[in-house]
Amino acid sequence: MKLGTKNNGMRDGQLMVVSRDLNRCIEAGHSIPTLQSALDRWEELSADLSEISKRLNSDTSFGVETKTIEWKAPLPRAYEWIDASSYIHHILLVRKARNAEPPKTLRTDPLIYQGGSGILLGARDDITLADPSWGCDFESEVAVILGDTPQGVKASDAGRHVRLLCLVNDVSLRNLIPAELEKGFGFFQSKPASGFSPFAVTPDELGEAWHDGRIHLPLTTHLNGNLFGDPNAGPEMHFSFFELIAHIAKTRSYTAGTILGSGTVSNEDRNRGSSCLAERRMIEIIDTGKASTEFLKHGDSIRIEMKDAAGKSIFGVIEQNIVPPKI
Amino acid sequence: MKLGTKNNGMRDGQLMVVSRDLNRCIEAGHSIPTLQSALDRWEELSADLSEISKRLNSDTSFGVETKTIEWKAPLPRAYEWIDASSYIHHILLVRKARNAEPPKTLRTDPLIYQGGSGILLGARDDITLADPSWGCDFESEVAVILGDTPQGVKASDAGRHVRLLCLVNDVSLRNLIPAELEKGFGFFQSKPASGFSPFAVTPDELGEAWHDGRIHLPLTTHLNGNLFGDPNAGPEMHFSFFELIAHIAKTRSYTAGTILGSGTVSNEDRNRGSSCLAERRMIEIIDTGKASTEFLKHGDSIRIEMKDAAGKSIFGVIEQNIVPPKI
Repeated sequence: MKLGTKNNGMRDGQLMVVSRDLNRCIEAGHSIPTLQSALDRWEELSADLSEISKRLNSDTSFGVETKTIEWKAPLPRAYEWIDASSYIHHILLVRKARNAEPPKTLRTDPLIYQGGSGILLGARDDITLADPSWGCDFESEVAVILGDTPQGVKASDAGRHVRLLCLVNDVSLRNLIPAELEKGFGFFQSKPASGFSPFAVTPDELGEAWHDGRIHLPLTTHLNGNLFGDPNAGPEMHFSFFELIAHIAKTRSYTAGTILGSGTVSNEDRNRGSSCLAERRMIEIIDTGKASTEFLKHGDSIRIEMKDAAGKSIFGVIEQNIVPPKI
Repeated sequence: MKLGTKNNGMRDGQLMVVSRDLNRCIEAGHSIPTLQSALDRWEELSADLSEISKRLNSDTSFGVETKTIEWKAPLPRAYEWIDASSYIHHILLVRKARNAEPPKTLRTDPLIYQGGSGILLGARDDITLADPSWGCDFESEVAVILGDTPQGVKASDAGRHVRLLCLVNDVSLRNLIPAELEKGFGFFQSKPASGFSPFAVTPDELGEAWHDGRIHLPLTTHLNGNLFGDPNAGPEMHFSFFELIAHIAKTRSYTAGTILGSGTVSNEDRNRGSSCLAERRMIEIIDTGKASTEFLKHGDSIRIEMKDAAGKSIFGVIEQNIVPPKI
């Protein structure tokens, strides 16, 4: 099934069940007001949601049009947002871009950071950039939303804690990163609020494309209407989501609604383009000695989408504009 | 007023208003079921909570005894847990302990990290330590709980976003830190769930002790019943909570219920002892060439409390035992 969160003026919005073709939707009902409430009691409630989903998919007169609704992030605020960096090609290029060595444990120990999760942007929410000199970049990613996940879970057992999949735009302020990482405590100011696809879907909605803890489909990014990249999110994801879950659960447990990102999707094949500006800039430096692509500026727009093998959008579209702060 | 969260079997517990002397308490009522719900609508609801608090403080027959209740963390799960390292003496000692240089911007740019917030431990919750070789340590801290806080807020205007104050035991796995920080993305596995004081209090409950964005009172730590340290949390907090709020709000906004910690409270005066094992171990190394104090082991207990000038406990006691995982 596919789920989304309607903006009803409340902090957590209203949970909606969405048809497979993303055209129609209906309220999940008073007993399941929000996605967090569904995740909190998933074993008890998911069958009810599934029934609604079946009716939406079989009865085209049921529900209202999704395009009439303003969508928030599936979880407009989440208890944890954890982001990995699981594509080796991305790590190598971005470290090169800031003259930093890749970690020695690149292929054995996942890179991961804890991000801010109190305010998550909806798919059409503007990215407010107070100072363009911060070097604003997008990062197109895939993510899983977990159910309750116990400490010590093994990768081989992690799949059953994956409730939903979605897309993320992990906004980064590249020019703030070097000084921040230099202090040794990781990202903070350099990671403002991330944007999320309008819809989160259960793994079965992806069919064969979801296997081995990876989504084996291209993730397409457009910048100002031009194709920027469409790397496949599957084969080059070095650590699968299952391995990432085992990694984060080594020393603590996770509550339902924890979101775990893949990191910027990246392929070695240059013809697939990139999922962030930093990669393209580094390729330009390698080829020509200098970066010609600029970081995001006010007025730019970024569009992220994933389609199934039949060309149908799975999660809906992230389409965000970069704007100055409102005075 | 003073607030706490009763364990009623639900994830977020039941909000209770607590008397100033911490002896009695009463449910905040059906319209304010949880602390998060109070923080979400603070302007609207805090007057109601204040009325209940006044009656509790004036009518000693009102309410039930706090000791009959099992207390969760004030926020058993929070949308963000952000921890600074604001005591310069602590930074210098701990960096020395792991042969790392203090950051060049030590006195001008706060050290801060994003912690996991999906599962926060109650004051009496055990600390489950799967592997004592991880080097488990406590860190006694003070913290603020914020209301909605907009991006760009200045330190001079930050005080009005501070809703509540509390104590934290920021549990750290010292032997996992060097390899994790070496990767460049900050702490992750090395920071398991933190423990919180049973009660969170509005700033006015501290009277003159809360000024300049600092709590000017000693924070007392006992290890296995022996006094370990009682450094003052005020004068040597290099960056005040107001400055820390301005720092974290440079590039994003925060939702109500965000928790911001001070970092390990530490004084230059050795007679005040320490608020974590790492500091004492470093002092032992400086004095004798080797650390004789061990990291926490199963069976150890840690007790953290702050008393007012009259010797009354302000936030109640954090008292946690270190235990092996349940088989």
